[in-house]
Amino acid sequence: MVAAVRIAPSAATRAVSLLRTVQYAHPPNCPCHSNPGHHHHQAKSQVDRYAQRTSRRGYASPVDQKEYAFEMAASSIRFGPGVTKEVGMDFKNMGAKRVCVVTDSTVRRLTAMKQVEEALTNQGVEFEVFDKVRVEPKDSSIKEAINFAKPYAPDAFLAVGGGSVIDTAKLMNLYTEYPDADFLDFVNAPLGNGRPIERALKPLIAIPTTAGTGSETTGTAIFDLVAKRAKTGIAHRNLKPTLGICDPLNTRTMPAAVKASSGLDVLCHALESWTAIPYNQRTPRPANPIMRPAYQGANPISDIFSLSALRSTVKYLPRSVKDPEDFEAQSEMLLAATLAGVGFGNAGVHLCHGMSYPISGQNAGYKHSGYDVDHPIIPHGVSVAVSAPAVFRFTGPSNPERHLAAAEAFGVDISNVRREDAGAVLADAIQEFLVKLGDQPRGLKDLGFGTEHVDALVEGTIPQARVLMLAPGLRTELEAEKEQLRNLFEDAMTY
Amino acid sequence: MVAAVRIAPSAATRAVSLLRTVQYAHPPNCPCHSNPGHHHHQAKSQVDRYAQRTSRRGYASPVDQKEYAFEMAASSIRFGPGVTKEVGMDFKNMGAKRVCVVTDSTVRRLTAMKQVEEALTNQGVEFEVFDKVRVEPKDSSIKEAINFAKPYAPDAFLAVGGGSVIDTAKLMNLYTEYPDADFLDFVNAPLGNGRPIERALKPLIAIPTTAGTGSETTGTAIFDLVAKRAKTGIAHRNLKPTLGICDPLNTRTMPAAVKASSGLDVLCHALESWTAIPYNQRTPRPANPIMRPAYQGANPISDIFSLSALRSTVKYLPRSVKDPEDFEAQSEMLLAATLAGVGFGNAGVHLCHGMSYPISGQNAGYKHSGYDVDHPIIPHGVSVAVSAPAVFRFTGPSNPERHLAAAEAFGVDISNVRREDAGAVLADAIQEFLVKLGDQPRGLKDLGFGTEHVDALVEGTIPQARVLMLAPGLRTELEAEKEQLRNLFEDAMTY
Repeated sequence: MVAAVRIAPSAATRAVSLLRTVQYAHPPNCPCHSNPGHHHHQAKSQVDRYAQRTSRRGYASPVDQKEYAFEMAASSIRFGPGVTKEVGMDFKNMGAKRVCVVTDSTVRRLTAMKQVEEALTNQGVEFEVFDKVRVEPKDSSIKEAINFAKPYAPDAFLAVGGGSVIDTAKLMNLYTEYPDADFLDFVNAPLGNGRPIERALKPLIAIPTTAGTGSETTGTAIFDLVAKRAKTGIAHRNLKPTLGICDPLNTRTMPAAVKASSGLDVLCHALESWTAIPYNQRTPRPANPIMRPAYQGANPISDIFSLSALRSTVKYLPRSVKDPEDFEAQSEMLLAATLAGVGFGNAGVHLCHGMSYPISGQNAGYKHSGYDVDHPIIPHGVSVAVSAPAVFRFTGPSNPERHLAAAEAFGVDISNVRREDAGAVLADAIQEFLVKLGDQPRGLKDLGFGTEHVDALVEGTIPQARVLMLAPGLRTELEAEKEQLRNLFEDAMTY
Repeated sequence: MVAAVRIAPSAATRAVSLLRTVQYAHPPNCPCHSNPGHHHHQAKSQVDRYAQRTSRRGYASPVDQKEYAFEMAASSIRFGPGVTKEVGMDFKNMGAKRVCVVTDSTVRRLTAMKQVEEALTNQGVEFEVFDKVRVEPKDSSIKEAINFAKPYAPDAFLAVGGGSVIDTAKLMNLYTEYPDADFLDFVNAPLGNGRPIERALKPLIAIPTTAGTGSETTGTAIFDLVAKRAKTGIAHRNLKPTLGICDPLNTRTMPAAVKASSGLDVLCHALESWTAIPYNQRTPRPANPIMRPAYQGANPISDIFSLSALRSTVKYLPRSVKDPEDFEAQSEMLLAATLAGVGFGNAGVHLCHGMSYPISGQNAGYKHSGYDVDHPIIPHGVSVAVSAPAVFRFTGPSNPERHLAAAEAFGVDISNVRREDAGAVLADAIQEFLVKLGDQPRGLKDLGFGTEHVDALVEGTIPQARVLMLAPGLRTELEAEKEQLRNLFEDAMTY
């Protein structure tokens, strides 16, 4: 296989070769020969799924062909302890004269914001601060932010905060560039019109203060669309920040519980993008490259990022949560969050994220330990990870080799695991990881959900078309899909 | 080490953990405890080296501190067979009205250019073609190209060709944006003034027709500065293309000898960037982020690209060279070239590239087999790879773990190799790879060089400050450095 092999390849080489072989191979190279019809079946079903969802969006391709290309785009990333202080020079270098600084009321009081204000002032860059970003933004809170930005007419944006802040800043940038657009124009189909972003937006620099969403590198912004009672978003490459400034000094202030839940978001970004359907199984081929979705399915470049982020998270998240003084682990988690952001930002996520939105949204009264808030809360990372064992048990058969490689990243010796056990083995590894991490619900039951809630959870998942279309093994036909989701939620009740 | 390990970690996990440990660790974690003074010594010498070379460039930092950050930037990449045809829509999407198409007289006749002209015409995008790019460009040929672009005043550029074409297009873009600049202003110090590029340039789309330089993703342009009789270049992140369109159908036309030599360039991009001094050993810390060099040293993100490109090249280059019908191998090599471009474009190269320029430039009469030209030629990839065994034997002690990991990528079982043999083992692996690839010189002697040429080769290498400063183990003091280079050229005479 490797022409220059002189000695038997080591396990590391074998693993890499194996992955190379299973990725994007043409049928003659497909190692799944024990079940020759499977891929065809899956491909067919994914074709139907994508075609169906895409036609809902009104982007019919002239030819019903499979995708043949992938596109990789990421924000520039600057990484280093103390690098926040450089941001004033960055805006001065680009000639920015009016910067709209976006943050929330908590971050406004932190050192990161103090350093930002000082850096801008030192360089003589004029700025205004909008600090009313809502954590878990709604369309209404985003519109309020847009209404702040429009009259100020900034020539650049700076987001300082977690994913909610960065996402809100992206949309302030978008709608000041398209002042007459209807808010729903750019919102993901089927809830919105899914219009692509043709124009280049203003420069946006993002300084994350959590190690989780990876929003500093992606073209995605997530929010609650209150009228439709659904979590949705806007996603296009042109929405991505110009530069992400990742300063590990800014994430030291996260409480352990926030470190854990944001780290679990990273874990699922990595696992879901790694196991998403391959880009070349998606249909239809877009008629114009601007319509090629950022959530395009797994591809050879996103894979590199996703697998690397997964390995880092397995290694560093437990250390980062357990020891507040472990600065190396915290730094590595910030880097892993960014790498996972590049991975899923160019591949997509699927079931854990799709199912998480109704889990968080339909929470009756669970309040996660370590979160000092006056209302019930299932943090995003917790709502994502709680279904992970059930999800990867379900997706295992779609690509056993990838599930085994993921299990290996958790430290499992996969040399004697049967391919048909790949999903179960990965599920076990994830469960054990969650249990050892500590303070995590052992399934939906611990979050207050029971069998009686499953139908509502399924109904809340169905609108997540953009991520469900990347879920391997999910059926196209609506009733069949609902049945699969019901089983997934049932399986996620306890582990 | 890995919290969730359930069973003894496999070799793959061990390799990853090992790399994680050796990278950028603080002294207490340094596995090189058997020689505690070594890193300090090296660090000190690198500090001096960088400070010395930087002060030549006039960029003294206010404080003599080590670098603490790295910055990752890459062009967007679109990859797929047939994707060339989309380029007309890309320019239309961005609203471009006058596109300067840059190519050479050979590529002008190929299918790639026909498809480009058709795609632009179909979308009603006006364009003019400049097809006089010189292979291995000189400053004079670049100035001719700039003089073509200036009166046309394009609002976007499109490069279709190999590295020479893409590099020339980058500089056409630069100097039409700075019409009054002196050509030497932006040229790398010490030969030029090394002025940073503050302005955003016009959009540039690059369509590579060779799998080698990775120029479609980098901010680097290389050319001969005839008056100084030296190969040099211009390097800044703002020079990088907006989008690289990588279409494996465009590289099918490469003759086997061109596939081999451009693939060897990829191999050395990967090996050199993987083994370059770490970014946080560089001094001084730049006073302004715009002065942070793209050739900043190895860093955690460039590493991912470099190692991945190395593994792919080892696997696919021999297949691609031996079988003109092996389209999978050709595609993977185009992807590897791009990945390596992202790696070295954000880390740098060192000795193989630094030494290659005088090797090519001082060629007396060698004409590489398979190159149908009427003059002597040592192709760039051949001139780079010929010194690789000697180079990595020399750099081995600087970071044995990385050299062992590279050897493992060649298929070597490293489990029982002593750390002090790391360089030699990697050198052996490279030698064997070159011999098996076929039609490669077995050292400088085969290219017509002898001991009597060594002094001139050393003198021709010294001006390559920008890459030499990233060479691990190279001394700062000029005479000592020359002695090391003399030994390297001597060692590279035969293998």
